[in-house]
Amino acid sequence: MTARTTADTTATVGEILSGRLTAQAGAFLRALPQAVGEAGSRPGERVAAGAAGTDDLLRCVRRIGGALHTFGSAFEPMWAAETRTELRWLLGLLAQEPAYVRRTARLLAAVDSLSETDPAGPGMLAGHAGAPKARALLERQLTLARTRAHSTLLQELRSSRLHAVADRMTLLAGEVPLVEPGRGRHAGALLPMAAAALIELGAGVERLPLRRAATPYGGEGLHRLGAQQQQQQQQQQQQQQQEQRTVPAARSEAETDTVVAADDAPWHRVRILVKRARYALDVCGAPSAELDAVDETLGRHQEAADAAVTVATAARTPRITPATAYVLGVVHADQRLEVEAARYAFGHQWPKLPHHGWHEWATV
Amino acid sequence: MTARTTADTTATVGEILSGRLTAQAGAFLRALPQAVGEAGSRPGERVAAGAAGTDDLLRCVRRIGGALHTFGSAFEPMWAAETRTELRWLLGLLAQEPAYVRRTARLLAAVDSLSETDPAGPGMLAGHAGAPKARALLERQLTLARTRAHSTLLQELRSSRLHAVADRMTLLAGEVPLVEPGRGRHAGALLPMAAAALIELGAGVERLPLRRAATPYGGEGLHRLGAQQQQQQQQQQQQQQQEQRTVPAARSEAETDTVVAADDAPWHRVRILVKRARYALDVCGAPSAELDAVDETLGRHQEAADAAVTVATAARTPRITPATAYVLGVVHADQRLEVEAARYAFGHQWPKLPHHGWHEWATV
Repeated sequence: MTARTTADTTATVGEILSGRLTAQAGAFLRALPQAVGEAGSRPGERVAAGAAGTDDLLRCVRRIGGALHTFGSAFEPMWAAETRTELRWLLGLLAQEPAYVRRTARLLAAVDSLSETDPAGPGMLAGHAGAPKARALLERQLTLARTRAHSTLLQELRSSRLHAVADRMTLLAGEVPLVEPGRGRHAGALLPMAAAALIELGAGVERLPLRRAATPYGGEGLHRLGAQQQQQQQQQQQQQQQEQRTVPAARSEAETDTVVAADDAPWHRVRILVKRARYALDVCGAPSAELDAVDETLGRHQEAADAAVTVATAARTPRITPATAYVLGVVHADQRLEVEAARYAFGHQWPKLPHHGWHEWATV
Repeated sequence: MTARTTADTTATVGEILSGRLTAQAGAFLRALPQAVGEAGSRPGERVAAGAAGTDDLLRCVRRIGGALHTFGSAFEPMWAAETRTELRWLLGLLAQEPAYVRRTARLLAAVDSLSETDPAGPGMLAGHAGAPKARALLERQLTLARTRAHSTLLQELRSSRLHAVADRMTLLAGEVPLVEPGRGRHAGALLPMAAAALIELGAGVERLPLRRAATPYGGEGLHRLGAQQQQQQQQQQQQQQQEQRTVPAARSEAETDTVVAADDAPWHRVRILVKRARYALDVCGAPSAELDAVDETLGRHQEAADAAVTVATAARTPRITPATAYVLGVVHADQRLEVEAARYAFGHQWPKLPHHGWHEWATV
């Protein structure tokens, strides 16, 4: 895991990066028409089990964007910055609908499991009168959100902005705009850049409340959120109080979401850093199955956190019955518990990663 | 931890049991007037922090009852059976009000913690509009229940049944009714009786889904309850279906409580067996701090399970707002999570107990 990898080849930085990016741009161009076809063929219908084109497209977009970030100094700066902006936009556009589909599946499965009446494994809401109503409410609201995301996608797939991205990828499939001094260097020069991504990841993890997350049932998901943001938030609050010279009012429910979001934010940030580190290791010929597993854990964290927000929002729907609201409260807590479980899993996976080998790369 | 203890004294079974029971009956008689005074001095008021008389009385009642059960063959059978019945009645009477006081403290603290707005540690319901209403509802219903328990206690403390128990304890403080053949045997003869209590405890634990509980976030508290009761319940259901010759209707909410209670029952049963084992070890001069810790864990399990039922019941109050119901749903899930956390803790404490030493006693 140390300095084998790209350091051992006879290739140059330019050869490695060109090889990777032209291949991924080619894959992008092959996946694009398929993704467009998939989107067009489901006007308001549920996404089919294997939306392979969209998945492939998302994978290419993430990997090209990651390479442009991590090995940034090797590329023409203006081109790299513009391309990253456009890929981020495309990522946001493509990822939304599948995310709603997964969230719908996750939340309906949670309601079904919690209200399961089978004596072999009933849930804590077994047969509760509010469960079918809460399920229908969540399904209705998520279908609406997904349909909106789908309309936006269909619209943007015909936009000039998307055509410009496709043109950009066509050019990239032909030639990668690398800067001259770095291009001819030995491929081992990629290792310190990958190491920087890994070090940034380490710094991101340092900011997480890992000690608290490593204790099961620390109650972090439900109680005592945001202890990491304490100083920062207190400073902000003091500043606001000084500016307004008023006693702060009781928090609104939207502010509650903000507090919880502030607690989740450093974890979501680390997920991005993990993805970048994974792609950087791939480019260096040193893929890490351990890091893939961490990425998967943080994916669950993100999806449970997003699902919890959806449930909290649904609970604010006017004129729902108390029974529906009660079930939504249980489901919300259940999703925050999944958030806590993912943090616990991360707290046990992270120390087992081969950090030391990676740190040596910084000095290759 | 093996056959030191009572086996090493020169005392007899009669001397050990008489010494213990006369002392505890004496303590009972000293605590009784204090407990009566405490009950009379709080007409509807919250129980003071240290209701020492009631606590002492509960302790004596539990220990005398435990000794009569575990070392039953040493006592006059009729007297022991009657005394145990009367002590169980007294235990139920005395334990109720303090249990409601603890449950009130537990649930109000949970609501406060979940709705805490302090940026240093906000809860997932930080500042939620339903929290004060849910808090007030729980406090009102628990105060009512506590007041009822208090009235019953005041009434029964003046009853002829209580006077009869006091008379029984006065006689016990003078002489313990032991049967003749066992009385003069060496105190080591107590060990197989204590071992039987420990073996019964082991058998009770065998029936618990410990492997599932040992995995943190196995979701046992919220999902997949009652897998242990599967066979039994299926048999019951089949029987009911055959009797009624109808398709079973959807479960009512009260039936949900029954399902959850069936899941908790084997754990509550083990808690009783742990207490008996603790008292038996004390009599044998081999108190176990590990078993005390297990008892404390199962106490938390019981209190969280009971609190969850209280919250579920409160959520069925007519005309509550959806916001109140939502908060109650979160609090209910939070308490079931505490149940799960206690099972996890038990799953890690149990294998560390010095079982082997105890099993040797059976053959002393």
